[in-house]
Amino acid sequence: MAFGWIDEQAQARRRAGLVRTLRPRAADSPLLDLAGNDYLGLARHPEVTEGAARAARLWGGGSTGSRLVTGTTDLHGELERELADFCGFEAALVFSSGYAANLAAVTALAPHGSLIVSDAGNHASLIDGCRLARGTTQVVAHADPDAVRKILGTHPGPAVLVSDTVFSVDGDAAPLAELAAACRESGAGMIIDDAHGLGVLGTGGRGAPHAAELAGAPDVVATVTLSKSLGSQGGAVLGPAPVIDHLVNAARTFIFDTGLAPAATGAALAALRVLRREPERAAQARTVATALHTRLTADGHEAVRPDAAVVSVRAPSPEQAVEWAADCRAAGVAVGCFRPPSVPDGISRLRLTARADLTDEQIGHAVGVIGATRP
Amino acid sequence: MAFGWIDEQAQARRRAGLVRTLRPRAADSPLLDLAGNDYLGLARHPEVTEGAARAARLWGGGSTGSRLVTGTTDLHGELERELADFCGFEAALVFSSGYAANLAAVTALAPHGSLIVSDAGNHASLIDGCRLARGTTQVVAHADPDAVRKILGTHPGPAVLVSDTVFSVDGDAAPLAELAAACRESGAGMIIDDAHGLGVLGTGGRGAPHAAELAGAPDVVATVTLSKSLGSQGGAVLGPAPVIDHLVNAARTFIFDTGLAPAATGAALAALRVLRREPERAAQARTVATALHTRLTADGHEAVRPDAAVVSVRAPSPEQAVEWAADCRAAGVAVGCFRPPSVPDGISRLRLTARADLTDEQIGHAVGVIGATRP
Repeated sequence: MAFGWIDEQAQARRRAGLVRTLRPRAADSPLLDLAGNDYLGLARHPEVTEGAARAARLWGGGSTGSRLVTGTTDLHGELERELADFCGFEAALVFSSGYAANLAAVTALAPHGSLIVSDAGNHASLIDGCRLARGTTQVVAHADPDAVRKILGTHPGPAVLVSDTVFSVDGDAAPLAELAAACRESGAGMIIDDAHGLGVLGTGGRGAPHAAELAGAPDVVATVTLSKSLGSQGGAVLGPAPVIDHLVNAARTFIFDTGLAPAATGAALAALRVLRREPERAAQARTVATALHTRLTADGHEAVRPDAAVVSVRAPSPEQAVEWAADCRAAGVAVGCFRPPSVPDGISRLRLTARADLTDEQIGHAVGVIGATRP
Repeated sequence: MAFGWIDEQAQARRRAGLVRTLRPRAADSPLLDLAGNDYLGLARHPEVTEGAARAARLWGGGSTGSRLVTGTTDLHGELERELADFCGFEAALVFSSGYAANLAAVTALAPHGSLIVSDAGNHASLIDGCRLARGTTQVVAHADPDAVRKILGTHPGPAVLVSDTVFSVDGDAAPLAELAAACRESGAGMIIDDAHGLGVLGTGGRGAPHAAELAGAPDVVATVTLSKSLGSQGGAVLGPAPVIDHLVNAARTFIFDTGLAPAATGAALAALRVLRREPERAAQARTVATALHTRLTADGHEAVRPDAAVVSVRAPSPEQAVEWAADCRAAGVAVGCFRPPSVPDGISRLRLTARADLTDEQIGHAVGVIGATRP
């Protein structure tokens, strides 16, 4: 059998109790959501859903082609201008996902002969970008500017550092200022993925690059997603205009992908405008994360101090992490469960996400359930 | 300057007259569209746009997380069941893009030690899938079952053939039955990308695998896009249930990507239902393509006989192809322009797409403009 070899892997997963299954959710699910990445609670904001609906009616269900052929509408242009302006970059380019944006940025900016220095805790999409790029990748210790400096010193040609700004698994922030200093000593560029920073960090949610005064710099390219704080779908690359022009001409996941659907473009644009009008949402997401962490730690859980909106709680083993998350769910609270093979360090944890619109009562309820179901 | 090296490439593109620029289109653009991939004219169908709008209102602007965490709604499940049923496969898995679906299928089904035989004319997303996969890739001559047989004969372990069913650039179809015979002689699997076949080929648009009686076979995995005939955004992998389960557990672009937005899911589902109710749309797209080809050939153009809805017309040079497309556009007709470096064979062409809803008059007008602007 052509694909018979997958049966063995399936059996091993079953034996280890690590089978992943899809659990479709109902529109009126009663679960308290601490698992999704809707950090600002905007995914169901009426202006956001109307932004999606209006765009679909006006422009159609899809963009009908590659951004270079028929897939760029005026709406894409509007979103790109407003997103670049908000985050403090010269230009922006919107993709169908953050994954595609990361593949584009890394592959187009790390040509043959260049060095890519990649943080050991980077997201899968950055890792895949490194693997697809023609440059040579060196993985560097997590959040370690000295290690970055040392590796960059060994390479005379073009080089780029690739790092998340906030790491998805533990929610810890990269030391951006120190990393920038290390890169600038040797003239290396930076590609920083602000998927978990946009909308949460920086003044009014302008993101980690803005907070670190790196936004708009000629040697800094940021990627963001439209699917977390902006409650939509898609991703974007932000950077100097010549870099964005280069991506338009050279990035395969831009050239050969269908443009982002009008509804997603419209939803993201509406969310961005809500965030501009209500900048306090960003700080509120951080406040909720800190409250979650404080209460969990007080209850004796081993939780990582959150730098943004992700709160990571250690679990004793992969199997117990899976059970713990299932028990929380059965008690009405949805939490994420990260465990091998999808964590770089092999440590299993519950992953909680703060939402700006969580009430004190909801936070208390969630912490109670997490404590009561503790393995 | 960190990214200074891109200036040289930008200058070279300018000198060659090959700069790609985005041209945002207005919602009420008067251009006659023969460039998009909305083969059935469904992107602006009221049921499709309402499907998008309704889903956004009910489920929100985004799916809020990975499909494995919070990103699977009941709507995703419905689309997956109906899509699998329509195309004749046991199961389906929806992705945020066809690009992501192709990366997933190839990487998850070509492990270390396996052989990937990849058609020389394959789409960029399949090529990137091969580059990311742990298996070893051998590129094989375009649409050549004997060459496939020969290469497969050299490899004793697991092997998979990767091919488009309809090639994006020239619109020619792969010899699926002969390729399947070659694969089956050595027990190799097939991954076939039906992006340009779904909605156009097979009974009522069930696609090329269905037409070739390969749909539902245990050794055949198909990928499709929701962004062409179905007028939305996203992609899907279709195959035996154990293969789909394997992807849920192993495919990085599934596990680490945000789930498809509800609006895109709803639009694709609505389009699929329109197509089921009005199966004649598929044949009509083919009829329009044949009419375009017949009239263009009668006018002395060198055009490839279309196997689906794409009609490719040779241009004398990259520069003249770009100019020709621009002149068509200036005369009110949008056509695609494919030229190096985004064509594997180095041949430049205009790429026309048939739409089921093009009238005879519109076809005549388009052919007239293409003739009048010929370089």
